[in-house]
Amino acid sequence: MRSPHIGVFDSGFGGLTVLRALLGHIPHACYTFLGDTARLPYGSKSRRTIAHYASQAAQFLVEKQGAEYLVIACNTASALALDSIQQAVPVPVLGVVEPGAEAARAASKTGDVLVIATAATVQSHAYATACREQGLRALEKACPLLVPLVEEGWTEHPVTRQVIDVYLSELRAEAQAEGLQYDALVLGCTHYPLIRSLLEQAVTPGVRVIDSAEATAEAAMRLFGQDGEARPSTAQVRCFATDSVEKFERLGSRFLGRPTGKVELVDLDG
Amino acid sequence: MRSPHIGVFDSGFGGLTVLRALLGHIPHACYTFLGDTARLPYGSKSRRTIAHYASQAAQFLVEKQGAEYLVIACNTASALALDSIQQAVPVPVLGVVEPGAEAARAASKTGDVLVIATAATVQSHAYATACREQGLRALEKACPLLVPLVEEGWTEHPVTRQVIDVYLSELRAEAQAEGLQYDALVLGCTHYPLIRSLLEQAVTPGVRVIDSAEATAEAAMRLFGQDGEARPSTAQVRCFATDSVEKFERLGSRFLGRPTGKVELVDLDG
Repeated sequence: MRSPHIGVFDSGFGGLTVLRALLGHIPHACYTFLGDTARLPYGSKSRRTIAHYASQAAQFLVEKQGAEYLVIACNTASALALDSIQQAVPVPVLGVVEPGAEAARAASKTGDVLVIATAATVQSHAYATACREQGLRALEKACPLLVPLVEEGWTEHPVTRQVIDVYLSELRAEAQAEGLQYDALVLGCTHYPLIRSLLEQAVTPGVRVIDSAEATAEAAMRLFGQDGEARPSTAQVRCFATDSVEKFERLGSRFLGRPTGKVELVDLDG
Repeated sequence: MRSPHIGVFDSGFGGLTVLRALLGHIPHACYTFLGDTARLPYGSKSRRTIAHYASQAAQFLVEKQGAEYLVIACNTASALALDSIQQAVPVPVLGVVEPGAEAARAASKTGDVLVIATAATVQSHAYATACREQGLRALEKACPLLVPLVEEGWTEHPVTRQVIDVYLSELRAEAQAEGLQYDALVLGCTHYPLIRSLLEQAVTPGVRVIDSAEATAEAAMRLFGQDGEARPSTAQVRCFATDSVEKFERLGSRFLGRPTGKVELVDLDG
């Protein structure tokens, strides 16, 4: 089987956790990652602006870099601009929200799930909507401190454990008040896989933690017609960013689980 | 004495702590605040882009709103674009960095000071440069978790105390390694006045905490020819933002110490 070329897009470098999961599932592919670091955060921008930015990014990956498949490893762009991106490029496009909701449906017996994400993702109610389409009830909670804690590198720090405890106990109280019998917790942010083990230790026993990045990689395998047969890792990874290349290189390897290599600067407006 | 009209600009709403200090020192003025929330964070952008954005904002405040004085309540714009702003508008313009450094000089007997700020401000070395011009040695430290903790409202939370302890003990170790006999800690971020008391409790006894917002308000009184005589508060405040008006209204009052009132949306590109 020849190497497929998969483009992966995020507003920042958090989406490298999705690329990491893709590398595990489709290890013989050729990957081009683009982080639109000059224009982040997408979360505070209008749907129209996000669609414009994300379509530009998709066109760069497909037209300039030759990607045959696209993964939108950005919750905000997946939630607000997937249709626009699909119209902007003539290749299969996969977001992170739907695979997360599908994995939650597969994991949940009660049909009630919890979702933690950034304030912007929660405000979009993208996961609640996708979960409803899967026949699930979802309660979403914004956890704004988790991204900065991960970016600070405090992925095993006692402070991070405490912050997780505060958020999860608030979420439990809300779930109880709404009468939810939840048995799954969806990680609706690309930064959260780095604190997955802390989250798994903090949830009530019996609650499954669903990693959207893993779920997306599994969905990519199916959608992109990859057979999932074990192959030696021959993956090539090339990374682009629109700004802050130095920060990307410094923090990115922790998200990717291996060095990002030299990150190339690109101007999407130019 | 008639009411002066003072324009206050920040990339977000953190600069409302500077406006709060101004209200304390020049209570009879008329204030127009502009937060460029659509284009934040400035910290990751180039000097040229920041100068362009900040000049647009300054022109809005002076030409459209009639401000006779400007306070740049944004550390990044003060550090990188003060000259450009001064050239863009024909009124006196004051930043937050120089007043902070001047206040540090007035407070420090040893001539060695510490500065805590965001990563972007530290990377610009704006405070170290301004302190050097005052004859001070300054050691700067980025404290990326403090802004999200303040925005989460955890201004008296035990987690915030712990995070402060971690940062300050790292800073003490660095200061010791470099042989600094510091006796002042400059708050180089407009969010930090909200955790000033926690910081004061955490510093080594004898170390003075310098609030750049307070220092800027004192400098404004002198530069703008206000006599500092006690007057009844007749201040009027009008707030504009370029995006996220709802978040501005929700969080802004905590920074301002009183309700922001209705925040008006403005498009600086239009």
